[in-house]
Amino acid sequence: MKIMVINGPNLNLLGTREPEMYGDTTLETIETRLASLAHELDVELEFVQSNSEGELIDHIHRAGTRADGIVINPAAYTHYSIAIRDALAAVSAPAVEVHMTNVHGREPFRRRSVVSAVCVGGLWGFGAATYEGALRLLVDGLNADEIS
Amino acid sequence: MKIMVINGPNLNLLGTREPEMYGDTTLETIETRLASLAHELDVELEFVQSNSEGELIDHIHRAGTRADGIVINPAAYTHYSIAIRDALAAVSAPAVEVHMTNVHGREPFRRRSVVSAVCVGGLWGFGAATYEGALRLLVDGLNADEIS
Amino acid sequence: MKIMVINGPNLNLLGTREPEMYGDTTLETIETRLASLAHELDVELEFVQSNSEGELIDHIHRAGTRADGIVINPAAYTHYSIAIRDALAAVSAPAVEVHMTNVHGREPFRRRSVVSAVCVGGLWGFGAATYEGALRLLVDGLNADEIS
Amino acid sequence: MKIMVINGPNLNLLGTREPEMYGDTTLETIETRLASLAHELDVELEFVQSNSEGELIDHIHRAGTRADGIVINPAAYTHYSIAIRDALAAVSAPAVEVHMTNVHGREPFRRRSVVSAVCVGGLWGFGAATYEGALRLLVDGLNADEIS
Amino acid sequence: MKIMVINGPNLNLLGTREPEMYGDTTLETIETRLASLAHELDVELEFVQSNSEGELIDHIHRAGTRADGIVINPAAYTHYSIAIRDALAAVSAPAVEVHMTNVHGREPFRRRSVVSAVCVGGLWGFGAATYEGALRLLVDGLNADEIS
Amino acid sequence: MKIMVINGPNLNLLGTREPEMYGDTTLETIETRLASLAHELDVELEFVQSNSEGELIDHIHRAGTRADGIVINPAAYTHYSIAIRDALAAVSAPAVEVHMTNVHGREPFRRRSVVSAVCVGGLWGFGAATYEGALRLLVDGLNADEIS
Amino acid sequence: MKIMVINGPNLNLLGTREPEMYGDTTLETIETRLASLAHELDVELEFVQSNSEGELIDHIHRAGTRADGIVINPAAYTHYSIAIRDALAAVSAPAVEVHMTNVHGREPFRRRSVVSAVCVGGLWGFGAATYEGALRLLVDGLNADEIS
Amino acid sequence: MKIMVINGPNLNLLGTREPEMYGDTTLETIETRLASLAHELDVELEFVQSNSEGELIDHIHRAGTRADGIVINPAAYTHYSIAIRDALAAVSAPAVEVHMTNVHGREPFRRRSVVSAVCVGGLWGFGAATYEGALRLLVDGLNADEIS
Amino acid sequence: MKIMVINGPNLNLLGTREPEMYGDTTLETIETRLASLAHELDVELEFVQSNSEGELIDHIHRAGTRADGIVINPAAYTHYSIAIRDALAAVSAPAVEVHMTNVHGREPFRRRSVVSAVCVGGLWGFGAATYEGALRLLVDGLNADEIS
Amino acid sequence: MKIMVINGPNLNLLGTREPEMYGDTTLETIETRLASLAHELDVELEFVQSNSEGELIDHIHRAGTRADGIVINPAAYTHYSIAIRDALAAVSAPAVEVHMTNVHGREPFRRRSVVSAVCVGGLWGFGAATYEGALRLLVDGLNADEIS
Amino acid sequence: MKIMVINGPNLNLLGTREPEMYGDTTLETIETRLASLAHELDVELEFVQSNSEGELIDHIHRAGTRADGIVINPAAYTHYSIAIRDALAAVSAPAVEVHMTNVHGREPFRRRSVVSAVCVGGLWGFGAATYEGALRLLVDGLNADEIS
Amino acid sequence: MKIMVINGPNLNLLGTREPEMYGDTTLETIETRLASLAHELDVELEFVQSNSEGELIDHIHRAGTRADGIVINPAAYTHYSIAIRDALAAVSAPAVEVHMTNVHGREPFRRRSVVSAVCVGGLWGFGAATYEGALRLLVDGLNADEIS
Repeated sequence: MKIMVINGPNLNLLGTREPEMYGDTTLETIETRLASLAHELDVELEFVQSNSEGELIDHIHRAGTRADGIVINPAAYTHYSIAIRDALAAVSAPAVEVHMTNVHGREPFRRRSVVSAVCVGGLWGFGAATYEGALRLLVDGLNADEIS
Repeated sequence: MKIMVINGPNLNLLGTREPEMYGDTTLETIETRLASLAHELDVELEFVQSNSEGELIDHIHRAGTRADGIVINPAAYTHYSIAIRDALAAVSAPAVEVHMTNVHGREPFRRRSVVSAVCVGGLWGFGAATYEGALRLLVDGLNADEIS
Repeated sequence: MKIMVINGPNLNLLGTREPEMYGDTTLETIETRLASLAHELDVELEFVQSNSEGELIDHIHRAGTRADGIVINPAAYTHYSIAIRDALAAVSAPAVEVHMTNVHGREPFRRRSVVSAVCVGGLWGFGAATYEGALRLLVDGLNADEIS
Repeated sequence: MKIMVINGPNLNLLGTREPEMYGDTTLETIETRLASLAHELDVELEFVQSNSEGELIDHIHRAGTRADGIVINPAAYTHYSIAIRDALAAVSAPAVEVHMTNVHGREPFRRRSVVSAVCVGGLWGFGAATYEGALRLLVDGLNADEIS
Repeated sequence: MKIMVINGPNLNLLGTREPEMYGDTTLETIETRLASLAHELDVELEFVQSNSEGELIDHIHRAGTRADGIVINPAAYTHYSIAIRDALAAVSAPAVEVHMTNVHGREPFRRRSVVSAVCVGGLWGFGAATYEGALRLLVDGLNADEIS
Repeated sequence: MKIMVINGPNLNLLGTREPEMYGDTTLETIETRLASLAHELDVELEFVQSNSEGELIDHIHRAGTRADGIVINPAAYTHYSIAIRDALAAVSAPAVEVHMTNVHGREPFRRRSVVSAVCVGGLWGFGAATYEGALRLLVDGLNADEIS
Repeated sequence: MKIMVINGPNLNLLGTREPEMYGDTTLETIETRLASLAHELDVELEFVQSNSEGELIDHIHRAGTRADGIVINPAAYTHYSIAIRDALAAVSAPAVEVHMTNVHGREPFRRRSVVSAVCVGGLWGFGAATYEGALRLLVDGLNADEIS
Repeated sequence: MKIMVINGPNLNLLGTREPEMYGDTTLETIETRLASLAHELDVELEFVQSNSEGELIDHIHRAGTRADGIVINPAAYTHYSIAIRDALAAVSAPAVEVHMTNVHGREPFRRRSVVSAVCVGGLWGFGAATYEGALRLLVDGLNADEIS
Repeated sequence: MKIMVINGPNLNLLGTREPEMYGDTTLETIETRLASLAHELDVELEFVQSNSEGELIDHIHRAGTRADGIVINPAAYTHYSIAIRDALAAVSAPAVEVHMTNVHGREPFRRRSVVSAVCVGGLWGFGAATYEGALRLLVDGLNADEIS
Repeated sequence: MKIMVINGPNLNLLGTREPEMYGDTTLETIETRLASLAHELDVELEFVQSNSEGELIDHIHRAGTRADGIVINPAAYTHYSIAIRDALAAVSAPAVEVHMTNVHGREPFRRRSVVSAVCVGGLWGFGAATYEGALRLLVDGLNADEIS
Repeated sequence: MKIMVINGPNLNLLGTREPEMYGDTTLETIETRLASLAHELDVELEFVQSNSEGELIDHIHRAGTRADGIVINPAAYTHYSIAIRDALAAVSAPAVEVHMTNVHGREPFRRRSVVSAVCVGGLWGFGAATYEGALRLLVDGLNADEIS
Repeated sequence: MKIMVINGPNLNLLGTREPEMYGDTTLETIETRLASLAHELDVELEFVQSNSEGELIDHIHRAGTRADGIVINPAAYTHYSIAIRDALAAVSAPAVEVHMTNVHGREPFRRRSVVSAVCVGGLWGFGAATYEGALRLLVDGLNADEIS
């Protein structure tokens, strides 16, 4: 089984970006921790990050042909990228939406997600651990044929 | 460590209520599965369910004095019970918000949660497994002192 | 055939509550008149009234197991109780929504019903007779297999 | 006693129009059933149907001079015809608003009625039987001097 | 000079319609008073009234070819008839909008006029005298070439 | 009979202010023309103009004690001065609202008047002649005891 | 194959109505050009135009029984006539919505169409040629069984 | 004279709940201080607190039969409980609405009160002293027959 | 201790202005009653009233330098004067907001206060006694160092 | 004459993406059909597709210097890309907006187009044929100098 | 060349008003710094400040006759004074809008400016230096005939 | 000191794009003028322009590591790119927002900026000179340690 982990804009700055909000864990650390969990769950991971909406769509399309599932943190694009929404709806690989912070307790515009409706599930608020929770739930769901 | 698992209105009907939406797992089964995971994680669980907003507030108050954390599925109250929101904000035990279905892909009024802002995190869309994911993330966070 | 007649908050005050709006008929009188009509229609009635949202949900759940239909006046809860809406949607017994007054000619917030979409039909504005009309239409519909 | 039964736009197509929504009963059948009930209730009926807003207003004006009450299904005009609303308010004959389907469970724009506030009462959702319920409640109310 | 005086839906009932709101002057009396003023101002009048939106549009079109100006009370159509607005914009004869009552002190939906933007001016609130004021201002403006 | 003619902010610039919108007639000319009409109608006029909301309220209060009616062009204050609205409601002298231009065909915020609901009537769009029409209708109405 | 071409309010004035907006082509010319294209496509056309909402509904009903498709320019009714929408939904003949101008670049209220959702497709902005494009696409689609 | 003092959800936690917001005074202390003032004013008090909307309604009903006035802090229910509003409107005992904090300077949803319109008056922002001010104003008003 | 009592527009008309709404107590009487209470509380009062927004701001500025607290009834300016809000926020003297009537039961625009968020507390609905309640709560709070 | 055909995000997946919505025609097939029509119309085509908003803007800029017209399906960007709107407004080549599906009958957010106002015209709902209709209308309009 | 520098309500308190927001520079210091820059740019300055909307309008009118340009900080009036907007539009001297703080990062109501549309340009967020930047850009633009 | 000057979509077309709106100055000329001012102010500049949201974010990230400040004209992205907003918030270099035209006097959607709240200041409306004003204010503020 293969899962693609897709991170959106500004997440390359994790660890230095507003650490009081996002903590000091870097994206590299998150990916290392996810790789370790993937090993435990016996799945293969592919990591991508981009600040470009178009490239993210390209990655989602690729996931559609070579991955069994998607863990995606669309970051700011969550709130307006209907193009990413359409990409997620267009591919057969199911996606889980991830947000590290409590997006519901910040600016009002962060409460709106245009992608949630086309994801199978989502998690928010647990910092770096959010990704691990997402990976575990996605893989368990795929293994149990409860997510498709 | 002790976690209180609180379920809101109509969840007592799980398994018979709109099974095409909620599946056929009963609340009892969910609680059994959670108890098993709790054993693995070495935490104690207390289960409550109520259709009454007032009783749910009473339960949250009790959690504030005798639990280390809360897993709550406020069900329909999610969308308007500012009283439950205030209860969650009033106690020191951190809470995780759980929804079994993709609330973002249903009626528009289900997209609004008045409690998210006072929870530490949330999960939605993984059916019965959503609770297990919530328990694991909450316990791990408490153990790691990342949730408080 | 058995029909449960459920009355919501403040309806226990009928006859004394704002008589210029609601008339001077008491809830007891309404129930007596309904019992008489039920006799004529050869159906059994069960009457409940509660000011508590949670108790009303409990009553709806009970109706789901021991009644063939529901006549419900959710009163003020009509306008915001998604929990009652979910309860009505969760049980198989069809429900008819009743309002004694012309809710459309009063405060704007009374024009919004969150329960109508999950009821089979509704009546408003005929005072105490509204209940009788509802009972007759519900029973006729059930008998004719046009309501299910 | 005389009641005018007024049907609005597209109701002449009943029986062929979207039968999965409106059933296969024709307007003629509804009028026949109403005539039978009128005989039982000892009232005279006059039936009109028009697709034209102006003609419907003319019919309401006529009802104001030669009928004791109105049963009206304004169909699509329900949602925007302030002219029909003003006509109903301008005549002394009380009106009952009728909708065959559950208008609250369809497109959002069907939830708004600009005429309800000037009617004495209303019924929705019981198919052809909605008209009969309306006629009975209107006639009973007029006989009991509870509607005027 | 010729002026067409166009009255919209329900104004044929003036004198009997809600006299506490509209007074007891009939449309006939208003037209007689206007005829007298027209004689004084040396202009010819043509009176039309219709409850039909389509006929009112036809009348406006006719005014476009055989009148120098229009005095129009669109009544309820004021609030939603974009078709009448387009008709007024399509003809070269300038129009004055008239309302007998204070439409701003009644229901909120009466505060919206979709036709005002394409009229040269308007008057509201002076009862039957509103028409006379409109006629005088329109004729004076046309004579002074200040309205075109 | 005495009428107070009250002009609001920026109207002192009439004749130089945006002449393509307001024409080149000065406020002085308007007052001269009104004085002439007042002579014809046998009424006394008092003219005031102020750019200050507070002074306009003071003038309205004065009108309440020494005038029989008010002709007021609140200009920009029309759209937000609830204080002027309250002043007009607080005095017994009836007021007529005047706007020289078609306020409905300009910026959307000019379509909202917070004072109309407490005036007896209003006129808009006839340039300088709007004031004369207002004076005539107000005086006629007071003479006929139709305005009070 | 027979197609009904239905034109709504004020389109009878084409050629004289606001020519800077609508051009100087008359409705007659448009119909002549359409007839020529119909000959080329080997289909029969029927032309109707009405300013009356009710008559337009009658025409749509007729199209339901004697035409294979509808080309309709609802003009101003586009923006509010739910009655015309319901008529289009009630008949089996598929309809194509036509607007000669760029309705999206004019007043905001022209951006809302209540009929689009029940049409198979639409065209806007090409002047008289819009009708020809609509006819061609509709006929081709019917011939290819891609529209039904 | 007897006054019922009714406290809503989460107020039982006063003193421990968000003390930076609500201070460290307990509900017990507030009641003691009120009892002392009641003694001074020569009135009898009855204290109730509940987290349940239904119980609060029951208490209001009781106040309607055995108290002369109500001091109520509906807490979170202030913002959505139309059922409590209806209860307050249904009983003859006048009610004063109390909020300890400046609800206008917190989250936007706290600015909306659905109960104010049916209370005789209200106070907010003075902490525990708010209750004392409310009691004094209510008792003085009842004594002076200015509140009824 | 010195308190400035500031009254906004139209309050100079108290006693004559809409007495069915505001009662027949004059502003002078209110000030006399307040002076008496001030004597009892051993504080000095300064009274100002103005219809001018600018003068009210000047008074608030003066209060900032020579008073310990402010009792203010901003009247109509409550609903839109951000300038008065900024003045209250700019001075260190705490302010209490006063409204004599139940502003929540009148026109919807009266429910919005732009100044509440920068006041320490507020009272509404007790007529002339509202001022006395405000003075007492403000002085008690200042004496107890609970307001600053 | 040269026309650039620009396709936006996710259209590269046509044929596999949600075929029940978009059909099974691939983008390649559409381009082949368009090339055939272009040959018939004697125009040259250039095809581009991109998932990137920035690249689409670059393509539009290129069209501005080397094409006579643009056929564009902005797909998801239709609903929010003001940058693409500005690009279309910035170049002199006229653009026609194309949507294969009935965007008006899907999610509400698909009803909003931010680019329509700067296009000369548009077509929606005819599947692959929509492009051909667009090309024909654009080329005919350019040849007839009716589009510029 | 002469420039009028106009400051609105509460700016007389600069230096003492909320220094954490506005800094501790007084208005006098700002004017001294501006005078120094004016000397460098060889222009004459006139300074005015008022808390009164009416006086600010009077100042703008004066600027219209004796200044070549206006630098204005309308402070709180920015957000609602259509009267000041109209004054700025009525005079020929171009105006530059100035705000010392980042009005976009504060309360939502501060994001709305009713005057921007009638100014030639604006600056915000640079504290006292904002005025100097405005003066320089205005004078340079006037000298270069790019502002008029 | 080093400043990065970032220009967003379509600004590469300056000089040819809608010159009646943006003037005929090219981006190259603006950069040349800025370079000259930078020499005078003794700072180093780096110029970038991109039509791609992702590339603009990359540039902002680079500015975060190698520049002391940012002058940015986000053009159309101003109105919806939360991703650019987050990028600006994520880097420590302060940013100044620039718009050449009066964005407040154009389409309503141009009045909304999602980036202003995270910039230190902004300027709009002075054409090419807007950039120079921004550079000067930014450099002066950095030198004076007033911007950080």
